[in-house]
Order: sequence, then C-alpha cells, then structure tokens
Amino acid sequence: MDPDTSGLTQRLAEAGQSHLLQFWAQLGPKEQRRLIQDLQEMDFQEINGFFKKAMETSSSNSKHEKMDTRMEPVPRDVLGSVTRDRDNLKTWEAAGLDCISQNKVAALLLAGGQGTRLGVPYPKGMYDVRLPSHKTLFQIQAERILKLQQLAEQKNKIQCCIPWYIMTSGRTMESTKDFFSQHNYFGLEKNNVIFFQQGMLPAMDYNGKIILEGKGTLSMAPDGNGGLYRSLGNQGILDDMERRGIQLIHVYCVDNILVKVADPTFMGFCVQKGADCGAKVVEKTNPTEAVGVVCKVDGRYQVVEYSEITLGTAEKRSADGRLMFNAGNVANHFFSFSFLRDVVQKYEPQLEHHIAQKKIPYVDTRGRLITPEKPNGIKMEKFVFDIFQFAKTFVVFEVLREDEFSPLKNADTQNGKDTPTTARHALMSLHHRWVLNAGGHFIDENGRRVPAIPRAEAAGSVTDDGDRNLKDGTDLPIKCEISPLVSYGGEGLERLVNGCEFRPALMIDERGVHELVKNGV
Amino acid sequence: MDPDTSGLTQRLAEAGQSHLLQFWAQLGPKEQRRLIQDLQEMDFQEINGFFKKAMETSSSNSKHEKMDTRMEPVPRDVLGSVTRDRDNLKTWEAAGLDCISQNKVAALLLAGGQGTRLGVPYPKGMYDVRLPSHKTLFQIQAERILKLQQLAEQKNKIQCCIPWYIMTSGRTMESTKDFFSQHNYFGLEKNNVIFFQQGMLPAMDYNGKIILEGKGTLSMAPDGNGGLYRSLGNQGILDDMERRGIQLIHVYCVDNILVKVADPTFMGFCVQKGADCGAKVVEKTNPTEAVGVVCKVDGRYQVVEYSEITLGTAEKRSADGRLMFNAGNVANHFFSFSFLRDVVQKYEPQLEHHIAQKKIPYVDTRGRLITPEKPNGIKMEKFVFDIFQFAKTFVVFEVLREDEFSPLKNADTQNGKDTPTTARHALMSLHHRWVLNAGGHFIDENGRRVPAIPRAEAAGSVTDDGDRNLKDGTDLPIKCEISPLVSYGGEGLERLVNGCEFRPALMIDERGVHELVKNGV
Repeated sequence: MDPDTSGLTQRLAEAGQSHLLQFWAQLGPKEQRRLIQDLQEMDFQEINGFFKKAMETSSSNSKHEKMDTRMEPVPRDVLGSVTRDRDNLKTWEAAGLDCISQNKVAALLLAGGQGTRLGVPYPKGMYDVRLPSHKTLFQIQAERILKLQQLAEQKNKIQCCIPWYIMTSGRTMESTKDFFSQHNYFGLEKNNVIFFQQGMLPAMDYNGKIILEGKGTLSMAPDGNGGLYRSLGNQGILDDMERRGIQLIHVYCVDNILVKVADPTFMGFCVQKGADCGAKVVEKTNPTEAVGVVCKVDGRYQVVEYSEITLGTAEKRSADGRLMFNAGNVANHFFSFSFLRDVVQKYEPQLEHHIAQKKIPYVDTRGRLITPEKPNGIKMEKFVFDIFQFAKTFVVFEVLREDEFSPLKNADTQNGKDTPTTARHALMSLHHRWVLNAGGHFIDENGRRVPAIPRAEAAGSVTDDGDRNLKDGTDLPIKCEISPLVSYGGEGLERLVNGCEFRPALMIDERGVHELVKNGV
Repeated sequence: MDPDTSGLTQRLAEAGQSHLLQFWAQLGPKEQRRLIQDLQEMDFQEINGFFKKAMETSSSNSKHEKMDTRMEPVPRDVLGSVTRDRDNLKTWEAAGLDCISQNKVAALLLAGGQGTRLGVPYPKGMYDVRLPSHKTLFQIQAERILKLQQLAEQKNKIQCCIPWYIMTSGRTMESTKDFFSQHNYFGLEKNNVIFFQQGMLPAMDYNGKIILEGKGTLSMAPDGNGGLYRSLGNQGILDDMERRGIQLIHVYCVDNILVKVADPTFMGFCVQKGADCGAKVVEKTNPTEAVGVVCKVDGRYQVVEYSEITLGTAEKRSADGRLMFNAGNVANHFFSFSFLRDVVQKYEPQLEHHIAQKKIPYVDTRGRLITPEKPNGIKMEKFVFDIFQFAKTFVVFEVLREDEFSPLKNADTQNGKDTPTTARHALMSLHHRWVLNAGGHFIDENGRRVPAIPRAEAAGSVTDDGDRNLKDGTDLPIKCEISPLVSYGGEGLERLVNGCEFRPALMIDERGVHELVKNGV
C-alpha cells in the first residue's frame, strides 16, 4: 500500500491537505488501507471550495441589522391555518386522502442524527420515551403510516401504499436497518421502507485543514439535513420515487413525537394551493423563543434562524397584536416531486454550506488525542429548508403546537425542555383530549370525574396559598395512550369511549380499551 | 378559667361544636386561657352558615356543562391591549402618572400566604430568588414604588406619594413588619406603608365540625385573598384611604416578580375608560393551561377557574384563531375607591366561600396527632375576584406574559415551573431586552456580540444533530439586572447603555453601570 501510486500524495499536496499522511509510517497495514480508501473517496478540491465559500458567507452574514430590513412576514394568502381556516380542513383532508389512495404520497424521514444530546449511543428513532406501550418513535411513525393507508382505503375502497424513505447517516444506517428488520418493519411492507444514507464531510480547522481524530482517521460528520438533496440523487431515491409515481412528499424529522406523518390535511392544502413547496409551522408567541421563522427575505421564502435577527425585529407585531414573524419552523415540509427533482438536479449545487463552530477532538503533531475546551474548528452542513428560495409557489400551513410538535432533544436531566418526559406528556395530553372530545370521561380513585384541566393537587396542607387561580406548578397529564393503529388524528373514537368513564392509565389499542393498573405503567 | 361562666359551653353546644372542649380537662391553665380566648372571638353560627352555603354552592357548581353555555368572552370594546392598542399606551401612561402626582393612587399587596410550597417558613415577600443583587420580592416592589413616585414628580414637578397597603395574615404579620422595619422600609416613608391583617377561618371536616390540630388548638387558615374586603372595613383601611384622598387602587399578589406595582398605563387605561373595576390579564394560548379566565357569565364578569370548564369550551376559538376564552387572570386588579367602598359595605357579605378540600392534620379522640393521606376536610376562602360581578363598568387590560408575569410558587425541585429559577430568569431576560432596546449590546468571552436570542451552546461535539433550527434545550438568559431605582419599565436607559458593549453579568443600579465578575454572581 503506497499513497504515491494512486496519485493521492499529489492530490493531497495540491489541496494543502498533506498533513493527513503525517502519521503514515506509524500506521499498521490495515489502518493504512482504510485511510487510503477514505481519502480516495474524497474530492479535496470540492471540499476546499465548500470551506472557502462557507467561511465567506458566514462572515458576511454577521451583519444582522441588514437582514432585519430585508425581512417580510408570510402574507395571509399563502397561509393555511387550522385555527383560522376551520371550514376548509375537511376539504383539504379529503383531497389529501384521495392523493394517498392514488399512491401519489410518500413520507421522507430525516433520521441521520445520533442521540448524542439524549445521551444514548443509538439513533433517536429507537428511543422509548416510556409510554405505557413502550413504543419507540420509529414504531409510532410506522403505525401512523399504516393507519393512514387504512383511512385512505376505507374512503376510496382501493388499496394503496405510502412509501417511507428513511435517510440515515453513515453512523446510524446499520443499527436502523437492523432495528426495522428485527421488528418486522412494524407491519409495513419491507419493500415500501427504503433506507438511504446522507453524505459525510470532514471537520476542518479554521485554516481549512481537515482534522484527524486519530493518526489514521479523519473527523467526519453528516453534512446536515440538507444533505438530503444530494443523497436523493446519488442514491437512486428520486428514480425510485419516479418509478412509483410519487408526486407529493412529506419530509420531517425523527424527533417530533407528535408528527402527523404524511398529514393528509397538510398535503391536501398544498395540492389545492398548487404549491411546489410548503412548510408546516407553529405560532411563535414569545419574541425570544429560540425557533427559526419562515418569512420572505428579498422577496424569497426562507427560514431565518433565531440567532440571526435583532430583538427589535423579533418583537415586531402586526395590527392584530401577533408577532409579525411568528411562523415557527418545525422541520416539517412538503415538496412536489417535480420541485424536488429540480432541487436535486439544478438548485442544490448552488447552495452553500453553513458552518457550525465546534469543539472537535484532534490528534496533535505528536499523535496525542486532544479534547479542546473551546471551538477549534467547523463542521459544514446544509439545511433542508435552504431550498425554499427556489419554490415558485410556496405555502405555509400553521398548526397547533400542542397537537403536532413536541421534539425529543435532551436527556431528562438537562433543564427540562424537549426531554423524554415532555414528549411523553405531550402525547398523553393529546390522547387525553381526544378521549374527552369523543365523549369519554376520566374519574379519580374516588369515582369522581376529573375536570378537563385537572386542579393540581396542592401541597396538601391547610396552609396553602389562596391564589390557586394562577398557573400551578404541577401539570402531570392523565395517563392515556391511544395506538396509532386505532386513531391517526383523534378520529373513530366515539364508538369506543362516548359516555364511558375511565380510570387512568387508559390504553386503547387494536386489542381494545384497557385500564392499566398503576404499577403496570 | 371556666368556659361555662362566659356562656361558651352553651354557644358551642348550640352550634354543634362541643367537641372543641373534649380535651379541656387535659389542658394546662395557659392552654385553657388561650383556647377560651380563641373561641370567644369566633361567631360559630356565622361559621356554620358559611360552611352550609359553601358546601351547597360547591355541589351545585359541579355541573360544568351548565357553566359552558353561560360563558361569553370579553368584548373588544372593554379590552385594552399592549399589543393591539399601541398608539394609546403613551396617553394612558401619562394619565396614570397624573393621577399618581395628585396622590390618588395606592398599591395594595396581597401577602397573606406563607411560603409553604416554596419550602420556607417565612412570608414569600422575603424570598431572595438569587438575583445578582439578592433583592427580595418586597424590596423589588418597594423600589418600583419609589421610582414611580419619582417619575410622576419629574413629569408634573410636584411631590407625591403612593401609599402601600400590605395585607398579611395572622401568621405572617409580625415577621413581615419586622422585615420592613429592619430594612428601613426600603427607602419608603414608614407611615406610607400600612400593614393590615386578613381574617382567619377554622378548617372543618365534611360534617361541619371544626378541626382541632392540637388538644387545645384549632386548625385555622387565612380566609382567602378575598378576605381582603372584610379586613379593609374592620381594620380601618378604607377610612385611611379616604383620609388620604385615594381614588384608584392597584391590588396584586406578592409572588409575581415582574409585577408593575401601581402600573400607570393600567391605571390610566382604567380611568380613561371610566371603569370602577378592572383586571390585568395575559393571553392564554394553550387550551389546557391551568389558568383562570376572565369572562362574562350570565352577563356579569367573573373569573372562571380552569377546573370549571369543559375541554370543548377551553378549545373554542374566535374567527381570528385565538382562544375565545383567553383572558388569563394574573391576580392584578384595579378598583376605584367608591367601588371598593361599596364592595366592603354592601357586596362582600353576599359572597359565599369557596371550598378547598385538604389533607388537614388533626387530633383523634384519643388526642393523637394524625396526618391524613387523603383530604379529610375543607378550608373556606373567598377570592379577590369574586366581586367583579358587582362592577358597573368593568374593563380588561391585556399585557405580555414575558414582560409582566412570572409567579414564584414552588421550590426549585418541583417540576421546574414557577420556581425561584424561572422567576430569576424571567427578570433577567426582561432586563436583557431593556438593554438591547436601549441600544446596548452584549459580548461574549471572545469579544463577539451575542445575538439577541443566543444560539444555545451545542453539546459541543461534532456529532451533534444537524437540526439546530428547532427550539433548543437550554435557554439560560444573559445575566443582567437593572435596579427599579434606575428604571421602572425600561425607560431612561439610553443614556446609560446606547452604543455600549457589555460582558455579562451586567448590573445597573443607582451607583452606576457595572460588569460583575463571573464568580461574584
């Protein structure tokens, strides 16, 4: 094995990356082989180009004031809203179900991330947030797809299928595939669950040198969820979609436990608006909430990240008192197939990478592994929403946060936000509301009906404050879980619960309605 | 000492409360004296009447469906809003400051509660939430009053005073008074800080028997923040107000760290609307949030508690997409003096007590102290907002939660809501925004400007997820505290911060602008 023979040494020298071979002589034959293989797959000139462009863009973007003057809110006529357009919801849903019946709809899951912040060494989709059923995020999503197929079949009396494309990364591919295989694809047909892999890019120091994380190992990271587009092309996914006749694609992130996979109302809204691209959003109500907002910049749609805007802009309000920039991005998007194809073929190469400054472990010139305390380099990534700007007819669909958005990001110890506990509570609270709205009731240990918004048990002593009317400290939800195989979005529950009284924990699944004993949960 | 001589035995027998003397023979002379004194002050027939009425009302109120059909939202014409009526805010504020200049405005603090849920044995107002200054809630409020007097004096060039009436309970009176005295009334004039005491009522079991918490001790509790009205009359507070020429009263709870004491904008709005009573509210945005809402019931205003409404009603929305019943009560009210006098003299006696079921420690027939595991009795209380129904011109003033409402209820361990940490963060976040809006900037350790909404430091490794655009797990605020003596509501900061860059923690107080070293906080 000799890097010279393949011209690698020369290519590295030309790209200013010769340091990658500095420990060559110290590597064993196996390590040498693997390093050469890794390096041969890489286009250093392209990577250097990415770095140069990204760094330039990053430094020019730091003038936030500029961005503020260029931003415009989403106009009302491109906005659909579950709270303001209630009369249209049924129509949109029916249109969406018809498209599903015609096998035009696919779901595309972004699942390249690892559970690092969650504190687990496996993909997030395999996480069990400790629901009564102990279903994982993958299983919940799979069952929603199954149920949606059934609903479309019931409506139009024809069999149909929603293919599920799952983007993993190099790090998560094997474990994800194994997990699905072990669980028999959760009842879906194996050939309708299509895995593909997002690309990786090396981490680089501030001088554009690729970082070694071992004497013979490059520091590699997924190229951002916007890596989707490149992968769709180079892994044959677009071709697969075309072969199946897919016309509408719902793209979403793995970590939202409430995600309405292939949501027919959202799909139907986008179709009826003639959109080629759309974003589902939730209303941002607090100016300093850390959420990106969908808006127009220089007349083109994009997501402006929370760190990019000034407080003045974040606090701007419309005449109705709402925040002017309130379309909070929840990584939940619609694409027409033709738009997606154009993105892959024409637009994606025009996109520049964003840079994220990171603390990247590296080996120093003496070969020792160093874990830096300050950011020492960058990771380059594209974002899935970077291509909104290319849409000809872009639409926005506003939904309720409590119904559709509860992401799982952090372990339970960290500050209490977006944790397994908040995700579990969000799901149980939603299902509790489904039961109430279908005419069911919950009763406590003494057989008394529990109010819809239960009064939190006070500390228990007679010395409690008199001001219980204010928001209380505890809001543990009623324990209630409904299998997606029974209800996709709250439908079909009347015949199971109307007029009935339940003691929590309540579980409704394909085997019936059960009250679980407390210790069983 | 003999209970017979004073006719007490007979009165107790007639009221069915003879059990209160069951341990008489076992008490020492001192205990006997105290018990007799306690009992002689009580009107058992009245208490029995309270109990009977409250229990009746409580059982008839349990039909929630009925309430739902009687509820109407607050009409737009009685609503003032800081987000929807921006053009009027300056006018209202000026009107409020004029009233303050004319010595017409008083602040009335409800501080009868103890810090039970907070886990401290002293009044909540004495709590230090660990701000850089370590100011207590009492001090923060006192300094806001001082500053407001100054602002009114600057505007109208006449000295003025905002008397501060502080309602404590039997349990908190001494410690509260001592605390103010020790701290020299935080710069206020001693005779403009007027303490009075809310009444107490005995806890009763479900049969209407008063509960003994010791062989010679009744279980007593404050009679709810609505006990205010009775105390105003029987402790000479109304007379004091009349003597001072007070015409406008701002009533609020001690636990809200952001409270704008005697808020001139709120006062001015109420005055210009010709209101005799008003409530400050924040928008309820999630249907199941545990907050009471101000609305009309049978044509009269009241607060409907969250546990009183069905989910269907809680989820109702107006055409603009907002919740129909969204006027979240924050225990922050306006009264005209004449209305308050009518309430005390005419209306309050008509009010019935609410009951709160509680676990009340009691002595059993053998004299042993029992701490029950289930509610075993009730506490009776009136609420301060029960008298809204008697207002002739009731108005509602909607403000921003992030600017004005962050109550301190629970210790830091309990579930993370309404804790010292959330209160401290809310205040520092508000003051951070004041600095930004006055033209100041914050810089990090490397001298770079921190965005208005800082990007949360990611977990730090290169394996972090690519979807940073979503809400992040950490939202630690920039450490920034501005003394109320410098700014009441964000005003007057330009000359101190405009164009300046600060390293947190930033402290602005009457001695100047300081950057605190990190370990000093």
